[in-house]
Amino acid sequence: MIVYFTFDPRPDLKEGLIQDFPTIDFIFHDNMDHTVLKEAEVIVTYGEDIEAEQIRLAKKLKWIMVASAGIEKMPQKEIAERGIVVSNVRGIHKVPMAESVLAHILSYKRGLAWIYEQEQKAEWNRKSKATELHGSTALILGPGAIGSEIGRLLQAFGVHTIGCNRSGNTADYMDDMISFSALLKELPSADIVISVLPSTPDTQHLLNSEHFKAMKGSALFMNFGRGDLVSTDVLINALNAGEIAHAVLDVYEEEPLPADHPFWQMSTVTVSPHVSSHSSRYLERSLEIFKPNLTKWLEGDTDLINKMDITRGY
Amino acid sequence: MIVYFTFDPRPDLKEGLIQDFPTIDFIFHDNMDHTVLKEAEVIVTYGEDIEAEQIRLAKKLKWIMVASAGIEKMPQKEIAERGIVVSNVRGIHKVPMAESVLAHILSYKRGLAWIYEQEQKAEWNRKSKATELHGSTALILGPGAIGSEIGRLLQAFGVHTIGCNRSGNTADYMDDMISFSALLKELPSADIVISVLPSTPDTQHLLNSEHFKAMKGSALFMNFGRGDLVSTDVLINALNAGEIAHAVLDVYEEEPLPADHPFWQMSTVTVSPHVSSHSSRYLERSLEIFKPNLTKWLEGDTDLINKMDITRGY
Repeated sequence: MIVYFTFDPRPDLKEGLIQDFPTIDFIFHDNMDHTVLKEAEVIVTYGEDIEAEQIRLAKKLKWIMVASAGIEKMPQKEIAERGIVVSNVRGIHKVPMAESVLAHILSYKRGLAWIYEQEQKAEWNRKSKATELHGSTALILGPGAIGSEIGRLLQAFGVHTIGCNRSGNTADYMDDMISFSALLKELPSADIVISVLPSTPDTQHLLNSEHFKAMKGSALFMNFGRGDLVSTDVLINALNAGEIAHAVLDVYEEEPLPADHPFWQMSTVTVSPHVSSHSSRYLERSLEIFKPNLTKWLEGDTDLINKMDITRGY
Repeated sequence: MIVYFTFDPRPDLKEGLIQDFPTIDFIFHDNMDHTVLKEAEVIVTYGEDIEAEQIRLAKKLKWIMVASAGIEKMPQKEIAERGIVVSNVRGIHKVPMAESVLAHILSYKRGLAWIYEQEQKAEWNRKSKATELHGSTALILGPGAIGSEIGRLLQAFGVHTIGCNRSGNTADYMDDMISFSALLKELPSADIVISVLPSTPDTQHLLNSEHFKAMKGSALFMNFGRGDLVSTDVLINALNAGEIAHAVLDVYEEEPLPADHPFWQMSTVTVSPHVSSHSSRYLERSLEIFKPNLTKWLEGDTDLINKMDITRGY
């Protein structure tokens, strides 16, 4: 049985796989080879190299393990028709994303960008405008696995956490919970507004200009979910009108962000190039999900961890 | 009774004092006026404007409230001879210092300085070298009030904490404790080495080149205590030899750090200009200690919170 990685993991990770599964032929490439594709029963991929053509060629393919969260770009119809099992690595973004969100919040509160600027100028200037995170209030849009981990860490810093989802049903590490419909009323109490919402019909342009008018003038807004939560114009206007103090963005309506986009030049915006989930331990964590799944697979059990419903896209 | 502030607090903080203590004559200046000095029973100061001459002039002075931690520069002999009570704001640095330390650690692990650089170049580059804090080991030199608060927060991020003090006696939020004498043996296990030690005969040049050789090549070293913990040359040599990966420094052997100091230009050093305890809430917190003390004082009780032993310097 051939398990085909269409990327090339670190040597120690490859050796671990080969040792743990001596009966399997692992093939590791850093791109897609069609000769191997035709023989593979399992493909491990980042998901961007699989189109309808690849599915047609891969006659023996029965399971695609996608080492990312989304499968938006994959040929869902062709995969479903063939009955190919798809699984992903949902959940492994929790730790790096929450650490990135806390890094940006603390950097903003403790003036790290300003410290780095003084350093570049070799200037000993102690007039830092540092504030404290302790005692502030954070509103978290999307308190799922990632949002709750952010809530847990914020609570450790003495932050009051308010979760906000569609239903208003309770979530972990939230001091209060509200539904989307109560959002406008609650925004004036928040010092930090963080979204980790996915893109769904309910969340697209969920925030409009009224929401930003309702926020504190000192508020920090962070979008680490999907770029279509708020239109770029609404956000730029809110920042330029001083309705909020600063935005830290990891996602955008258009990615890559064009070189002439206003965000790059705005001192009230921190541009993070969609890297908040990146981690040197990403693949290690992906394999921690893949290995027990491969054991199941060898036993004929196709009820895999993180098995996806390909027709629904999640 | 005159209470003389030799600095000028925010209007809301002044009004709060005047309302809470209607029988007291508060005088607020942004410098030291000798006419007022002669009449004041209590002086509230940052401590740098009081020399032997001021003590001689202040005939009615009975209590100096120092809104900082150290009194190294004050005329200790003259104060002690007059039996003047001195109190300080010990303890109010805990929250901002711990937040600064966590901000720098997370910024380093999640690559924020790199993100800010890409932003300056308006360059969408996703090749971030971000790593995770989770699962690492931190060795904390000086697990007192500040060090333990750092330990508490690190534990929330899934970090194993090792405290190190002179005695090796237990401290809060430390998974393990060691004494100074066991330091060299323990250093190879630490991913992060953080000092918040004060300057005492035991801590001056506590770290020498052997200690840096014992650290991991990937280690992050942070000095947020006092600059004389390690000689500048030892630290520069260790960084240039790759014995550790990076240093974040808030304190230095010489402050201000001279404009031509090598640290400014070293990519392996983050220079913070001794601002880690700064906070917009600093004075608010100082007054939270001063007000109950002033109530005690009015009742004739001189057993103040944070009363200092002026002859010992702490």
